[in-house]
Amino acid sequence: MKNKIGREIPQEILDMGFEPYQGEGAKDGCEYQKKGPRVRAYEKPFESKLVPSIREAIVKSGLKDGMTISFHHHFRDGDYVVNMVMAEIVALGIKDITIAASSLGSAHDPVADYIEQGIVTGLQTSGIRGRMGEVVSHGKLKTPAILRSHGGRIRAVESGEVHIDVAFIGAPTSDCYGNARGKGGKSDCGVLSYAMVDAKYADKVVVITDTLVDFPNFPPSIEAVDVDYVVVVDEIGNPKKIASAAARMTQDPRDLMMAEMCAKVMAATEYFKDGFSFQTGAGGPSLAANRFLEPMLVEKGYKISWIIGGITSPAVDLLNKGLVGTIVDAQDFDVPSLQSVHNHPRHFEISTSQYCNPANKGAFVNKLDFVILAALEIDTDFNVNVITGSDGVLRGAPGGHPDAAAGAKCTIIVTPLVRGRMATVCEHVVTVTTPGECVDVLVTDYGVAVNPRRADLKAQIEAAGIKTTTIEELQKQAYAIVGTPDPLPFEERVVAIMEARDGSVLDVVRQIRD
Amino acid sequence: MKNKIGREIPQEILDMGFEPYQGEGAKDGCEYQKKGPRVRAYEKPFESKLVPSIREAIVKSGLKDGMTISFHHHFRDGDYVVNMVMAEIVALGIKDITIAASSLGSAHDPVADYIEQGIVTGLQTSGIRGRMGEVVSHGKLKTPAILRSHGGRIRAVESGEVHIDVAFIGAPTSDCYGNARGKGGKSDCGVLSYAMVDAKYADKVVVITDTLVDFPNFPPSIEAVDVDYVVVVDEIGNPKKIASAAARMTQDPRDLMMAEMCAKVMAATEYFKDGFSFQTGAGGPSLAANRFLEPMLVEKGYKISWIIGGITSPAVDLLNKGLVGTIVDAQDFDVPSLQSVHNHPRHFEISTSQYCNPANKGAFVNKLDFVILAALEIDTDFNVNVITGSDGVLRGAPGGHPDAAAGAKCTIIVTPLVRGRMATVCEHVVTVTTPGECVDVLVTDYGVAVNPRRADLKAQIEAAGIKTTTIEELQKQAYAIVGTPDPLPFEERVVAIMEARDGSVLDVVRQIRD
Repeated sequence: MKNKIGREIPQEILDMGFEPYQGEGAKDGCEYQKKGPRVRAYEKPFESKLVPSIREAIVKSGLKDGMTISFHHHFRDGDYVVNMVMAEIVALGIKDITIAASSLGSAHDPVADYIEQGIVTGLQTSGIRGRMGEVVSHGKLKTPAILRSHGGRIRAVESGEVHIDVAFIGAPTSDCYGNARGKGGKSDCGVLSYAMVDAKYADKVVVITDTLVDFPNFPPSIEAVDVDYVVVVDEIGNPKKIASAAARMTQDPRDLMMAEMCAKVMAATEYFKDGFSFQTGAGGPSLAANRFLEPMLVEKGYKISWIIGGITSPAVDLLNKGLVGTIVDAQDFDVPSLQSVHNHPRHFEISTSQYCNPANKGAFVNKLDFVILAALEIDTDFNVNVITGSDGVLRGAPGGHPDAAAGAKCTIIVTPLVRGRMATVCEHVVTVTTPGECVDVLVTDYGVAVNPRRADLKAQIEAAGIKTTTIEELQKQAYAIVGTPDPLPFEERVVAIMEARDGSVLDVVRQIRD
Repeated sequence: MKNKIGREIPQEILDMGFEPYQGEGAKDGCEYQKKGPRVRAYEKPFESKLVPSIREAIVKSGLKDGMTISFHHHFRDGDYVVNMVMAEIVALGIKDITIAASSLGSAHDPVADYIEQGIVTGLQTSGIRGRMGEVVSHGKLKTPAILRSHGGRIRAVESGEVHIDVAFIGAPTSDCYGNARGKGGKSDCGVLSYAMVDAKYADKVVVITDTLVDFPNFPPSIEAVDVDYVVVVDEIGNPKKIASAAARMTQDPRDLMMAEMCAKVMAATEYFKDGFSFQTGAGGPSLAANRFLEPMLVEKGYKISWIIGGITSPAVDLLNKGLVGTIVDAQDFDVPSLQSVHNHPRHFEISTSQYCNPANKGAFVNKLDFVILAALEIDTDFNVNVITGSDGVLRGAPGGHPDAAAGAKCTIIVTPLVRGRMATVCEHVVTVTTPGECVDVLVTDYGVAVNPRRADLKAQIEAAGIKTTTIEELQKQAYAIVGTPDPLPFEERVVAIMEARDGSVLDVVRQIRD
């Protein structure tokens, strides 16, 4: 059957218990039962949870064939934890493992081998890239991968749809009792937002650190009361790949032009007033929008109330200049952000549930005024794809994109009209990761299009002297430049399910022909 | 049947599903399933959770006859919240209510009327005092009150033994979304440690504040993601009764003598070394022990690693002098403590679960070296009573006493041998709140007795030149002074169940004859 946004959801997926997507906010107000983990009471005094190796922690955790394990991705491309843990699991002969990570990337290429060997049989993640994306797209994973937004993952864990048997949490610092922090140590990642829910909902929790510190390691991101074992290893990550020196500001004139237009569009809307809230993605034009926003704030005497999201140096600059009241931080992308969350009294670590879970009693994204986000593709229904490449292969991550887009009053997608030989604005995206009903404005290097659902915004933008066009017009221009794309050679078999934030099925990804 | 410490537990109580106490640590290592609340998802953006009155919040929460509500006691004798909420519940005609509070006191005398009127039919609390203690002791409550330690309460809530339908959380500050803090406002209580578990486990959460602040009120003690409604009222408490100006240091020579002996006993043990951890109760001699400890630390060049518990100015003084590394704070008793938790970078708010829950993966009390605690009575088995008076009427609170006593390597009880006409050291305490197997040393104004289970400590204390006696000898001296106490005129009926930390029954309290 077709879901609300016209995507065909095969009966076999519905038979697995999935519901088709029924539109933005369809589950708003629904009640559900939060699950809890099975925990072991430690009542007697005891000294330490230290175990000498990852292998021993795996054995003590009781990990068995068929279980689900979890990881976070705060170490990004510098992560060593997934590969270290998986190597020991494989060496122990444990199989039929589902990895439920907050995200996975090209740092985790070895997992592709374990998928091909049938050791890893399930994947639940936001991002999927590199060799892992290739093997899943080519049908090597035994079960369909389940792809979720960051908020959707928290919802799934809290509701018990994902039950984590053992969480492996890489932590820049930990004490012997498992009080763990994102800050300090050799592999500083600033915050541990993604891992917080894992610690609270997994049956067993193993903290892996390369920097053991004195008890109590406070204030903790991960609380000792949730931790079973602590393992100290030499290195949990490569600091150079965890955080860049600073977000590199684009010098590309096309990017800068689009960034300036994003800022102008924002300033034209009713939401641009003193105390608005703001999020940008980490892409070039999104980031550069901060630069153009700054003089507009100064001119009007406005201050941004709070900035949220993955944090980069432009947000930190605005905070340090007093143009932002508060930064609420779910991930750090560069060294200035790490330093700021350590030191600035109005820069706070939050859990991903606070950031963007659609099924709690009110995440920060619900109160967002503006978000500027990128896209691999956007179609004439304003549906966005950030997961599959133009060859149909998995190589992206919905991340917080669908969450922020759903929450923000004004969601701006910024993207060039074409990338190389690919039309970014197209008739039908390969995979819908963010439904078009959550997107308000598209800014491209060939013009601005406003979602017809937002006639109010269109009027405001045009009243400010910004010319708009239609997304159909932009799509035709794109096809005129690069030609109409050929259909992708998909097989019937579903290799990945793209969940909406609320757990229903937004789209499926099919196997690509070899 | 008799439980492990020889207390008769009536069959009717066992028939209710309670287990008899089986000894310290009997449930250590046991696994259990944590429960979760039923929550309503707020997916769409929305502005505010503000409702104009407590009455409306009660109505919106869906509170019905037979439900369980919760409160915290951070406002101590200055609390207005319980009475305000209960008055509205009564006015709405809702009945058969169970109050599951972290503690209740003489500020809540009106609840005694609601018990007599049959509106409040269940009580689950740590403390019970004033008129409420009187009416419960006289058999007016429909069901036996369930008395728990602070840690036992968290265990009961997390395991689902107590299911909170609606939590009413008084908060010194809150934003419109429910991010609530113990700090600031007109009714500053420093921390909201007791309420944290309520917010995470109650189906509905109502924050009641007298100081609404800008969003986001960060870092929050209570997270907006757990809050349904926010009510702003004129006053949630009386600041003068919430925190005293400063903990008054006793000048009583008898108290000072006992305090000095406590410090000497500590210094005699193997646990007195650089980096030890420490807790004191807020009673006169316990507090005064800090004064005698200070020169001993300076002389040896020792530093206390961390202090935990209800915090008072002596602990803050030690922190400010650099003699303590960290304060971990579950409750503030005076203004210096409030100021310190606001301002000192090594003074941290913790949840009561982190403090002393016996059923998580390792609370702070498990790592305590020393605790000094008071007693209403202590018997020759070292069992302590801090709940019933010498007349058999409920007028105390186990609080964190059983938790710290169970956790600490060296638990010192300090009490004068007699108080007025009452023998503090006796043959059998009226009610056991902390089992004797958790008590190591008794310090009185007539001598020091060491629990025979701790021959090691006795040898260390005597080696330091401190003369010890037996607890039987102390009891005989007490009876010689004030006479043998008459048996109390108890009826058969059980009016309260004193749970051990692990949920088994330590003792029962019977109805007192009118």
